[in-house]
Amino acid sequence: VSKDEKISIADVANLAGVSVSSVSRALSGHPHVSRALRDRVEAAVRETGYHPHPLAQGLRTGSTRSVGFLVGLISNPSVAAIYTSAVGVLASRGYATLLVTSQNDPHLDVLYLQFLAERQVDGLIVSTAAGGPDQASSAIMRLGIPTVMLDRAVLPAKHVSAVQSDHVGGMRAAVGHLATQGHRRIALISAPDYFYLGRERTNAFRTAMKDAGLAIEPELLRSATMHESAAYAETVSLLRLPQPPTAIIAGGNILLTGVLQAMRQQGVAIGRDIALIGADDIDLARLYNPSITVISRDLVRVGESAAHLLLEAMSNNGGNVVTIPTRLIVRESSMRSWNVAASDR
Amino acid sequence: VSKDEKISIADVANLAGVSVSSVSRALSGHPHVSRALRDRVEAAVRETGYHPHPLAQGLRTGSTRSVGFLVGLISNPSVAAIYTSAVGVLASRGYATLLVTSQNDPHLDVLYLQFLAERQVDGLIVSTAAGGPDQASSAIMRLGIPTVMLDRAVLPAKHVSAVQSDHVGGMRAAVGHLATQGHRRIALISAPDYFYLGRERTNAFRTAMKDAGLAIEPELLRSATMHESAAYAETVSLLRLPQPPTAIIAGGNILLTGVLQAMRQQGVAIGRDIALIGADDIDLARLYNPSITVISRDLVRVGESAAHLLLEAMSNNGGNVVTIPTRLIVRESSMRSWNVAASDR
Repeated sequence: VSKDEKISIADVANLAGVSVSSVSRALSGHPHVSRALRDRVEAAVRETGYHPHPLAQGLRTGSTRSVGFLVGLISNPSVAAIYTSAVGVLASRGYATLLVTSQNDPHLDVLYLQFLAERQVDGLIVSTAAGGPDQASSAIMRLGIPTVMLDRAVLPAKHVSAVQSDHVGGMRAAVGHLATQGHRRIALISAPDYFYLGRERTNAFRTAMKDAGLAIEPELLRSATMHESAAYAETVSLLRLPQPPTAIIAGGNILLTGVLQAMRQQGVAIGRDIALIGADDIDLARLYNPSITVISRDLVRVGESAAHLLLEAMSNNGGNVVTIPTRLIVRESSMRSWNVAASDR
Repeated sequence: VSKDEKISIADVANLAGVSVSSVSRALSGHPHVSRALRDRVEAAVRETGYHPHPLAQGLRTGSTRSVGFLVGLISNPSVAAIYTSAVGVLASRGYATLLVTSQNDPHLDVLYLQFLAERQVDGLIVSTAAGGPDQASSAIMRLGIPTVMLDRAVLPAKHVSAVQSDHVGGMRAAVGHLATQGHRRIALISAPDYFYLGRERTNAFRTAMKDAGLAIEPELLRSATMHESAAYAETVSLLRLPQPPTAIIAGGNILLTGVLQAMRQQGVAIGRDIALIGADDIDLARLYNPSITVISRDLVRVGESAAHLLLEAMSNNGGNVVTIPTRLIVRESSMRSWNVAASDR
């Protein structure tokens, strides 16, 4: 077997002349495995050069290392994508990842951090509910466990690293694109300022509008708690303004669901009556009809970076900040030139 | 304060004349809290009748109980919805829930079960990758930890309960609805038989077609591994048949994304050129344009039932099976009468 080919457990089973499940039982330290079988399997493992999954090695020796992963909502598809990406890297390095969710309750953040510390996790990847200087931050500072903050405020400590996203760059691309299409009345629906991402995206929007030479109409700047119904209500209210916006940016994918719902029910044709841009490239945006332009964070890269920063922090090389670029993926929901659209009416 | 009103930590802070964060620090056993402050807070807690979060009680006494939750992919929105629902019930009863994901690798199932057992979880909610009689099932039988199987084969043990879904009922409603609209050539794209849900849904489809008096064309029965690209390829192949189906049922929401992608790229108008039914009521189906008819599992109820069954199993009352009904939510993607459609062409 060449070294480049992936050697599987089936190769070991073939050589040892036993079943795959016997190999697995022998390698996982199953109690009812004869000495003879174990010897035979171990000889075949040596001969084939088979490497069992990194997680298996730690488990056999009882030394499995673990990482705690704390987020608000795992039902948010962006969060699930980041988690899945990070877990892949961590598992390949032998770390088992334990996910806990605070349901965006800052009190639960603190409780879960304490719980994970008691369970002696070796590291933490954390996206706290509020994301500000709060009790969860204090807990992270106090616990001293190597930690990576995920798109949250940077904490000034050697054991804490951070992955951030270039929200300003993404928002600048979005507003610039809309301005080029002739849009002037651009609305933003974002999470409230007490959520880190809401604050960051709102500030980025202000910067981007200024850079594009556009005025921000206070009535077009809306905040909605991260529920579909709140974004729905804000969208309906925007559409009913005496002078409604010609473009809406939904600052988050849970908010996007409410915006889509409102536009459907109000009979507004996305991409024709109004331009729409979402945040994060989730299935809904990609597959929607019309397809929806998004500010994309490259969630796989965010997760991988978080895992790598944590591996470094667990080797006493913490205190780093990585900023992941964002990019605008232009799709049907924002492709129509608005000057033409206006004269069409 | 009336007993019916929810007493918050702010009420305690007001009465004690301190900040909310002081109350929280005092209640969570923070080291830098004076005896005087703790006494004052505890008096206010007694007077208001405030109950801190059940998780906090265990954490303060170091007796927090925990549940391990093992699934294949948390990026599947149905799985995330079930998890979120179960965690709510478990947290209200003082259990911290640790989620681990096998990425549908049966080997990782076994490793994670062993890992959770070593971490002394009090119970398990498990949706194994293959879901058949496999090594993960053996591990569950051997470990003896109270366990609830989530939409997987029932294991014959007193410590194992199961939540199942009425796939036959849902598929019968879907096929019956399509038959009433005049459809005869109905295709199913389902996960392969070695996945429990794939097997269950395919068998349910066979039963439903037979009950509706319709023949199953072998060329219309497709299996696709649970990736968008596989479902995409099967859909394209179905649409290119000399006699394509007039309706497609996508047996799973990851498969649905591939079906939608293929129909878009082939220029097939859903609900007009072809009828489409999905499985599980996810955002994508509800918000899509046209909205998509689904066989819905009531994911909130599945999660709650799993949590309640586990609480019972942890009180030595395991070995139970609950079957959750499914229902058909009819939307635009399947509302057109097909007899009319055929003569339209």
